[in-house]
Amino acid sequence: MAHLLHIDTSPRGERSHSRRMTHEFVGQWKQVHSSDTVTYRDLGHQPVPYVDEPWIAAAFTPPEQRTSEMWESICLSDQLVDEFLAADIYVIGVPMYNFSVPGVFKSYIDQIVRVGRTVIYGTDDSTNGFKPLERGKRMFVIESRGAAEYHPGGQYETMNHHDPYLVTVFGFIGITDITFIYVGNDVESISNARTQAIDLIAA
Amino acid sequence: MAHLLHIDTSPRGERSHSRRMTHEFVGQWKQVHSSDTVTYRDLGHQPVPYVDEPWIAAAFTPPEQRTSEMWESICLSDQLVDEFLAADIYVIGVPMYNFSVPGVFKSYIDQIVRVGRTVIYGTDDSTNGFKPLERGKRMFVIESRGAAEYHPGGQYETMNHHDPYLVTVFGFIGITDITFIYVGNDVESISNARTQAIDLIAA
Repeated sequence: MAHLLHIDTSPRGERSHSRRMTHEFVGQWKQVHSSDTVTYRDLGHQPVPYVDEPWIAAAFTPPEQRTSEMWESICLSDQLVDEFLAADIYVIGVPMYNFSVPGVFKSYIDQIVRVGRTVIYGTDDSTNGFKPLERGKRMFVIESRGAAEYHPGGQYETMNHHDPYLVTVFGFIGITDITFIYVGNDVESISNARTQAIDLIAA
Repeated sequence: MAHLLHIDTSPRGERSHSRRMTHEFVGQWKQVHSSDTVTYRDLGHQPVPYVDEPWIAAAFTPPEQRTSEMWESICLSDQLVDEFLAADIYVIGVPMYNFSVPGVFKSYIDQIVRVGRTVIYGTDDSTNGFKPLERGKRMFVIESRGAAEYHPGGQYETMNHHDPYLVTVFGFIGITDITFIYVGNDVESISNARTQAIDLIAA
């Protein structure tokens, strides 16, 4: 039995392709893995705040030295980290906005990448002195974007700071098994995404 | 006589290296170019909101078809675009957060990259059918980040979605003359950034 964290980041409702596809994906998943449990977080409609100075001061103070005000300022961040760490599998819908992720998803990332909670200082790895605390989890990212050639070798590859960014930052906290499902505006790409999802879930 | 737009994005105050350096830079600039004017926007302390569904609906509706509710939902975005377009020179302080820009600066970018205002559909360019509306402006980005090798050829180059991202997205709206000044935590990098700033301003 696994636990899924299902996240939507699009501010759009019915008109969001990524949102529709994550719901289809999770529905399909539940049909195949009926004992799995799901937590849902809708960042698109219930955004998390930007990190602020009290957040930074608290997050970079060792826990045993934090004041109650400091704990307060990272209380939501701690809840988000708890929720993130409780999951084995992630299903995240992320539209491409201006070649990267929407602001609200960047804020979520800034809230959950936390020294001592999702990453620790270390010397025995290759990632800039940091060591992730998580291992062995799986992530599915449903990425909605235009039809341009952002893929490796494509004409606009170097402009793509969306999926390569997610590989970097989630790899930093130990999520290295990430599968991307692309969905565009056209019927064909939506149909392809559905087929890919069904195959992935059955596998 | 030129007009500068000075933007800080760090939520930190006195403790922000990027913020201190942008203020030094603009102060120095004013000494050399005393008739230039400056607008200041502090995104770190007065964040702009994430784009939401009414924003998207309005921004992608042709102006002549927008309802008054639509105009309302992009009113701040229009003000930010007006302010952005009024400048000839940009001085922006941007810390690296988790290999990219802080969430609030991503939101600012999402607010000012606007079809019909900073970019238009076109067919005669090489950027995915879009054509920037701005040309010939100059940007200085003061980037605070750790000491790791994020530069081209460096060990962590592929993890850097900070300055390469800014080159991509500001290039998309026609700002192609961007100079980066790096500042770290150490005395040497701060001193180097100061020297670089003074040389750039004098040039």
